[in-house]
Amino acid sequence: MFQAKIRSDTLKGIVNIISTLVDEAKFNIGPEGLNLKAVDPAHVAMIDLDLKKEAFEEYAADETKIGVDLDKVKDVLKLASSGDIVEMEQDEEKSRLVMKVGNIVRRMNLVDTSSMSDPRVPELNLPALVELSVSEIQKGIKAAESVSDHIALTAEPDYFELYSEGDTDSVNLRLEKSQLISVSADEKARSLFPLDYFSNLVKAVPSDTSVRINLGNNFPVRIMFSLADGNGSVGYLLAPRIESD
Amino acid sequence: MFQAKIRSDTLKGIVNIISTLVDEAKFNIGPEGLNLKAVDPAHVAMIDLDLKKEAFEEYAADETKIGVDLDKVKDVLKLASSGDIVEMEQDEEKSRLVMKVGNIVRRMNLVDTSSMSDPRVPELNLPALVELSVSEIQKGIKAAESVSDHIALTAEPDYFELYSEGDTDSVNLRLEKSQLISVSADEKARSLFPLDYFSNLVKAVPSDTSVRINLGNNFPVRIMFSLADGNGSVGYLLAPRIESD
Amino acid sequence: MFQAKIRSDTLKGIVNIISTLVDEAKFNIGPEGLNLKAVDPAHVAMIDLDLKKEAFEEYAADETKIGVDLDKVKDVLKLASSGDIVEMEQDEEKSRLVMKVGNIVRRMNLVDTSSMSDPRVPELNLPALVELSVSEIQKGIKAAESVSDHIALTAEPDYFELYSEGDTDSVNLRLEKSQLISVSADEKARSLFPLDYFSNLVKAVPSDTSVRINLGNNFPVRIMFSLADGNGSVGYLLAPRIESD
Repeated sequence: MFQAKIRSDTLKGIVNIISTLVDEAKFNIGPEGLNLKAVDPAHVAMIDLDLKKEAFEEYAADETKIGVDLDKVKDVLKLASSGDIVEMEQDEEKSRLVMKVGNIVRRMNLVDTSSMSDPRVPELNLPALVELSVSEIQKGIKAAESVSDHIALTAEPDYFELYSEGDTDSVNLRLEKSQLISVSADEKARSLFPLDYFSNLVKAVPSDTSVRINLGNNFPVRIMFSLADGNGSVGYLLAPRIESD
Repeated sequence: MFQAKIRSDTLKGIVNIISTLVDEAKFNIGPEGLNLKAVDPAHVAMIDLDLKKEAFEEYAADETKIGVDLDKVKDVLKLASSGDIVEMEQDEEKSRLVMKVGNIVRRMNLVDTSSMSDPRVPELNLPALVELSVSEIQKGIKAAESVSDHIALTAEPDYFELYSEGDTDSVNLRLEKSQLISVSADEKARSLFPLDYFSNLVKAVPSDTSVRINLGNNFPVRIMFSLADGNGSVGYLLAPRIESD
Repeated sequence: MFQAKIRSDTLKGIVNIISTLVDEAKFNIGPEGLNLKAVDPAHVAMIDLDLKKEAFEEYAADETKIGVDLDKVKDVLKLASSGDIVEMEQDEEKSRLVMKVGNIVRRMNLVDTSSMSDPRVPELNLPALVELSVSEIQKGIKAAESVSDHIALTAEPDYFELYSEGDTDSVNLRLEKSQLISVSADEKARSLFPLDYFSNLVKAVPSDTSVRINLGNNFPVRIMFSLADGNGSVGYLLAPRIESD
């Protein structure tokens, strides 16, 4: 059993972030909230999302799993204005999700979850931690996209840097300690990442969000941030690329 | 002879509605106003539009017929700002229509009307009549478009419903009597229609317009509304599709 | 040596105009300002642009030449908001241009200028001169684009006219002496031009600019206007087409 009401903006934010990695998602639902773990088909990135029942306007659920086609949910969200409430109800008999916005009712077949595994989140020892507003990164990404397909993230004790290098041109964005919320790095930590994954995630994060970036040397990066006024949290792991020089 | 001035917004509204069905249109013009009847090439829908001379800022005409390429009229209307006045004058000698917006003059060849017939509007006995704001329907259509190519309209004594069903999903919008301007149906009247025609028309109607929907069982629907502050009227007939179940 | 700061809007305006003709441009730089002369690959149009050092917020330069890929400059300008200052510095050792907007630094390879000649601006005796706001022409061009690929410009002692004629339709925009800033023509001067070149230039000129149009009979047109609050000037020469009638 799953029955809930949620603000359309909150649901939009969540769907935008998940759909950077997958088209179909399995939500593990329980009485206190829901969790989603997903890996993209190429196994480059993983998302681990928690949403407490407090993120919803109304929430009632037993333990259940529902598989959802995110494009269909986006279709419904296009009908909602900012501030609208979206109702969701699992129809267990017909294996459907019924979504309501205003007078409109959409009944959608659920996706079979039997073949969808729950990926295990690996434990990683990432020594550097930077916290900053996502809007700072968003500007740097836009600049990087015109020169390269990769982006190097560097944390030093007193700054954080995004650097992209193409065949002829390079772009860098250096944020000094004073422009960051915090930086904690005993020594330099630097890894190279595929720009498209990094960019898709960063663009999906609401622009007033502060993100924490957990970085090592030639190691995956973990990007963490809150959603739904602190009632949701996202951990995003992105695998590194090999730096050739 | 035909010579007139009209507000660009009024002309835009009229052209938008006619061009949901045809690219070229024959206007039957007389001293008191003009009329257009048109059927789309697939004979699925028919429009019957009347415009009194009071819909114009200035109007002077004898009995005449002019055939117009609506895309050319749209080109001219793109040059007009809201509130601009568009001048039109038939140049009978050269078989042209001269349109003026501000300092710009466009002379366009008229379309030969000899092969364009005036379709006869059929008489239909449609028992149910619903009146509502077109903006209510516009939202329902947007939802229906993501699941199916068809839409079923149902009038019952106490509600009006739009329903679309695809292979896996369905959408419905139910408007109770209190959400309608009026509903008059002794018994259930339901017919299925091609969504694209219905949607194109409904989207072309200005959003603050109230429309009357005249419905039967597996019968065409007649959609009626006013234009140009009540100085114009449109009747739109749409053929039904066969419901398979 | 070249090192300068300029308002992003000023630089955007300049780049937009030059890139109607060429993708790569050679700037001849000196202590008092810079100059660019360029002809498009088809030799239909030529631009001659001067920018005094007063057009910059800061400016320091020796005699030098830099070849720039305008698409890369546009990439950087997309990162700038209105009112932002763009820093540019020539890195002579590495033959690069370093551009900075906010915290972002982009290093771009310069284009080799050795094969880029400085076209000689021809002297032409063009008897008619019209001065008007470019926004008047912009509306006429939009109308002309829907009927033809060419546009005829006519200056008469008491009016200026843009005229386009297609197979079936024609458009003209006639501006009387009172709607012009000035007109000086002893007799009729009329030439035909390719609409795409004329349109691309006119659309790139900021809409509150007054342009001077220097016209002859079946002769090139010279279009002149100021940039950067009078600290820059553009002369644009466009070759005529043959009028067939």
